[in-house]
Amino acid sequence: MKLRDIGEFGFIDRVAPLGQIRSEGVVKGIGDDCAVVSIGGPDYLLVTTDLLIERVHFLLEWASPEVFGAKSLAVNLSDIAACGGRPLDAFISIAIPDRVALEWLDGFYRGMSDLARVFNVNLLGGDTSSSKSDLIINVAVTGRVPREEVLFRHTANPGDLIVITGPLGESAAGLDILLRGGPIAEEWQRRLVAAHLETRPHMEEGRLLAASGGCTAAIDVSDGLSSDLRHLCEDSGVAAVVYEDEIPVSKPLAQAAALMGKEPLDYILGGGEDYVLLAGLKPTVAKDLLHLASDRGMHFFPIGEFIEGQGMELVGRDGTKQAFTPGGWDHFR
Amino acid sequence: MKLRDIGEFGFIDRVAPLGQIRSEGVVKGIGDDCAVVSIGGPDYLLVTTDLLIERVHFLLEWASPEVFGAKSLAVNLSDIAACGGRPLDAFISIAIPDRVALEWLDGFYRGMSDLARVFNVNLLGGDTSSSKSDLIINVAVTGRVPREEVLFRHTANPGDLIVITGPLGESAAGLDILLRGGPIAEEWQRRLVAAHLETRPHMEEGRLLAASGGCTAAIDVSDGLSSDLRHLCEDSGVAAVVYEDEIPVSKPLAQAAALMGKEPLDYILGGGEDYVLLAGLKPTVAKDLLHLASDRGMHFFPIGEFIEGQGMELVGRDGTKQAFTPGGWDHFR
Repeated sequence: MKLRDIGEFGFIDRVAPLGQIRSEGVVKGIGDDCAVVSIGGPDYLLVTTDLLIERVHFLLEWASPEVFGAKSLAVNLSDIAACGGRPLDAFISIAIPDRVALEWLDGFYRGMSDLARVFNVNLLGGDTSSSKSDLIINVAVTGRVPREEVLFRHTANPGDLIVITGPLGESAAGLDILLRGGPIAEEWQRRLVAAHLETRPHMEEGRLLAASGGCTAAIDVSDGLSSDLRHLCEDSGVAAVVYEDEIPVSKPLAQAAALMGKEPLDYILGGGEDYVLLAGLKPTVAKDLLHLASDRGMHFFPIGEFIEGQGMELVGRDGTKQAFTPGGWDHFR
Repeated sequence: MKLRDIGEFGFIDRVAPLGQIRSEGVVKGIGDDCAVVSIGGPDYLLVTTDLLIERVHFLLEWASPEVFGAKSLAVNLSDIAACGGRPLDAFISIAIPDRVALEWLDGFYRGMSDLARVFNVNLLGGDTSSSKSDLIINVAVTGRVPREEVLFRHTANPGDLIVITGPLGESAAGLDILLRGGPIAEEWQRRLVAAHLETRPHMEEGRLLAASGGCTAAIDVSDGLSSDLRHLCEDSGVAAVVYEDEIPVSKPLAQAAALMGKEPLDYILGGGEDYVLLAGLKPTVAKDLLHLASDRGMHFFPIGEFIEGQGMELVGRDGTKQAFTPGGWDHFR
């Protein structure tokens, strides 16, 4: 049997029980954006790790080394944000094929360092190796979050508002433009490509949600809305209703969809790497929290609500309802 | 310029300053077996990460998946041991080429889980991806150590005894046998290959050293005695004298050296992946500590001493002295 027969999440379910050796100190192991560990004191320790591989996740010709350095760190910072925490330190493992010049690596570390400075994160330790083929980068990041503020995936309740902390789909449309090849001449194309490559971790958004006391659950949208909303639904034992006319669609996203013969919803539901946060809000605090976010220059969009039951439903602009299922990127299917 | 022009350690020196963003909370960043972080409370947090790549670090045909799973974790546990700590949790990133069967992966996780159980370590979170070519494994491990017991590389003093917590060179000889190919028919060959593949983290040895109050510095020997002793010397600002006739040479090691047309010292000084600890002991406590280790079934060997000055010197069996320099494996030279 091959991995593609059971998929990435099937594989994780298969091996997860083998890793449960000791329950003491583990608040949340496998199955959330970060592992959440109790180490004594008022804060939980958060740990997350992400592997980025040339030809699987990116092509070197897509961007400058600075962009790849920043993104390698950003995707991990996004996981810390999704748990409501602040990052502490990053640990970088890198395997380098001989064709990659030292000047490229300098740029890579410079880009990572510039982003690390924004979030006050040290780049510590790690491992350095040669590689026979692809450039390989693994970044692990630690963080901390006050115990009473940690955000999980499994704690959404029926009646909670579903919010996103930024627009969805632009990153996936940007990836489509990169994969299509050819010159990226138009401003709207550049914006979409930047949405894909220049990941901004929604750290302040995550902290606002966590400290509000009104956020019941959160995840970062890395695999598309359908896949990541399903995680919240299944882990929390709730269903979701999403309203199409509440989902923001930018003009560049609409342009890309038209060019590629797709719908904007294809990118929004089935795309990936948005790295905005998807959260549940208690209805009693939602209004105040949305105002507060807006006052702070953040762009939160309420797009639906959690309800009793199972599954996910999209209410179209004409009021028709249709169930939807994950079309998120699963590496092995 | 290419990485091979400056080597692995030159590269680390080059990028390390870019990672120093925040000094608060960082006890030791880049340049020891683990990063040592202050998180409040009586213990320091330790973090280490290691990347293992097919064709760079191993070939799949060398061993069962269980052996590779255990080794992937063991090399990180060895770093925790070298800092005098106890491990907490491990975070596994794995990128899997399509040709690797699910049954192989089951074995890999089973082997890792079996070793994790020995050391009471959880296998948490991580990342799973496809790979276009090689199997790639990154393991990050957290640990903790009482603040007053943490062991560093930079704190050895002139006059300290140099000890190793096990024999050196057998792992490198085992690797030579694997690389030579052909059947591994003899018991002594199997023992050497096991020394290479079945890494045993010297955790109890590390804890004994750390809790003794008499260990001044430690490192795990991953790149050969010459390379790792140099780290202790340079980081501590001391020199070292090593006595050839104090260095244990097993019969299998001597047999392998004879077969390969090498000296046992070639493997001991220039080999790698021994994963025993190399430590400095205060002369006032050394005798008692060596007795205590022996009582607990450990095999500590005093092989020399740190002295004032620079460099490393080997005193041969005939009393002749010769300087030696690192012949340890440097991935880029």
